[in-house]
Amino acid sequence: SNALRAPRMDRHARISSIFPPLLHRDLALELASLLESRLGSDLLPSSVPDNIKSFQNQSGTSFGSLDIRYGAPGSSVDFLLESWLHCEVPTGSIDITTLLVYQNDSTDAPHFNLEFIQAGPTSLVLLLDLIPRRDLSFCPDYIDKFYQGTNVDKPRQDLEKLPQVVPYRSPSLYIRSIWSPTAILVSINCGEGGAMQMEEIIKGTVASAAKEVLGVWLERCVGTGTGTEMGEEEREYMIRRDRVVKSKSIEIDLSANLPRLFDPDVANRVIAEIQKACARIKSSMILFNLFL
Amino acid sequence: SNALRAPRMDRHARISSIFPPLLHRDLALELASLLESRLGSDLLPSSVPDNIKSFQNQSGTSFGSLDIRYGAPGSSVDFLLESWLHCEVPTGSIDITTLLVYQNDSTDAPHFNLEFIQAGPTSLVLLLDLIPRRDLSFCPDYIDKFYQGTNVDKPRQDLEKLPQVVPYRSPSLYIRSIWSPTAILVSINCGEGGAMQMEEIIKGTVASAAKEVLGVWLERCVGTGTGTEMGEEEREYMIRRDRVVKSKSIEIDLSANLPRLFDPDVANRVIAEIQKACARIKSSMILFNLFL
Repeated sequence: SNALRAPRMDRHARISSIFPPLLHRDLALELASLLESRLGSDLLPSSVPDNIKSFQNQSGTSFGSLDIRYGAPGSSVDFLLESWLHCEVPTGSIDITTLLVYQNDSTDAPHFNLEFIQAGPTSLVLLLDLIPRRDLSFCPDYIDKFYQGTNVDKPRQDLEKLPQVVPYRSPSLYIRSIWSPTAILVSINCGEGGAMQMEEIIKGTVASAAKEVLGVWLERCVGTGTGTEMGEEEREYMIRRDRVVKSKSIEIDLSANLPRLFDPDVANRVIAEIQKACARIKSSMILFNLFL
Repeated sequence: SNALRAPRMDRHARISSIFPPLLHRDLALELASLLESRLGSDLLPSSVPDNIKSFQNQSGTSFGSLDIRYGAPGSSVDFLLESWLHCEVPTGSIDITTLLVYQNDSTDAPHFNLEFIQAGPTSLVLLLDLIPRRDLSFCPDYIDKFYQGTNVDKPRQDLEKLPQVVPYRSPSLYIRSIWSPTAILVSINCGEGGAMQMEEIIKGTVASAAKEVLGVWLERCVGTGTGTEMGEEEREYMIRRDRVVKSKSIEIDLSANLPRLFDPDVANRVIAEIQKACARIKSSMILFNLFL
């Protein structure tokens, strides 16, 4: 059983050795470990070098860790990306944690996205969604299957009932357009002295929502045969669409922000690693992709 | 000049003769009249019979008026729909006003949508948007052109700053998926005794937002040459997409609600008139549409 627990201990030990303790990070560690144990042999071993798995800026005020595990042959997973960041800034500190699983073209079932952006002990942004891979206005059946039939609007409703919660809107209109209609995009603000309250919310409603949505994703979205029926044209459209979503997301989210938090060479190294994963052409697709 | 003012006076007289006075209705009348005078010869005369232009339920507690004007040959407008409803309900009254302009396939520029749902003097839902006709996650340029470049996020921000405003979410996940990232989807609640405050908000921020968004639509979206470049395949995709959006919107919005507010024969007559407009096959498209 020690062997089975090794990856979890490995991540726990690594992340704890780099970052100060933080409640949302504990929750993300729990979810990452759940993801990994449920996906099991769907994932290949980590593909990133040590200087990506742990990096920092020269002045030692910003720390980061990125890991990417590609999907194994036959899996519907394209790759699992986890990113852990801690940055000291003049006003305090910012901690950003991302768990992202992109699927490949063997299914049109949604990607999984979880992101925490925490600025201090009383302010947390949560972006949690099953990212759709179809044009939803054109595909009502896709909505029925993955969002209506799975009841993922319920955790969103529960969170938005809390008086400390307001909707979060990305400044990027493009990023606003990638989410599903049940996406949890919220800013939680507990005000001065509200650190205890934030703890309760993270351990309670936030943890429940994250586990609920991840559970739906693991049960209903992973694996071939999870998707809706697609003709070849639809599959090709989805592949091109996925490509735009991935590259725009990186451009807007990371390329704009990492260089402000880390030295350019560190930021570029990390971004290049993510771009490599997103741009990866699977051998079966080479011929097709020549025409894109 | 009497002749020029005739359509405006006609609508004003007709609506005022049917419905009790209401501030959001006055604003909608002003906007409808602006729309009509700016579109001018883009619109053919009204296409609906008198028993659609004015209808009511048997017990005389619900009144309605629907008008549809098709776009003239050469115009980018498919049709302008205006719908005015007043229903007495056990808790008071509900007033629903809709101004909707669907465009045809000569452009991919957005449709225009304005809807007010008012339940009493202190509660108003506003749905105001330039409805996209492309899969936005796949078309960042479309977002840049119609939403970023036109600054339509500003009126949304202004409205959402008001303490009386909370986001409105349609119970239908499908309807949530049709909007643009700058859509104004808000519920304004002024609480008991807040009728004066609601008046100020309608005359102020709501009127400004509606005029701003309608202005952008009239300036940037009407007319051939307003859209982004489309190949034939993209145009065909857009036509099929538009058809799904229209038919699902009617099914969810009207077919579910009108029969509760009016007698079935009245509701069916009105729905049939709208379905006719949505399903209309333009002669140039007959051949293509056989394959859909």
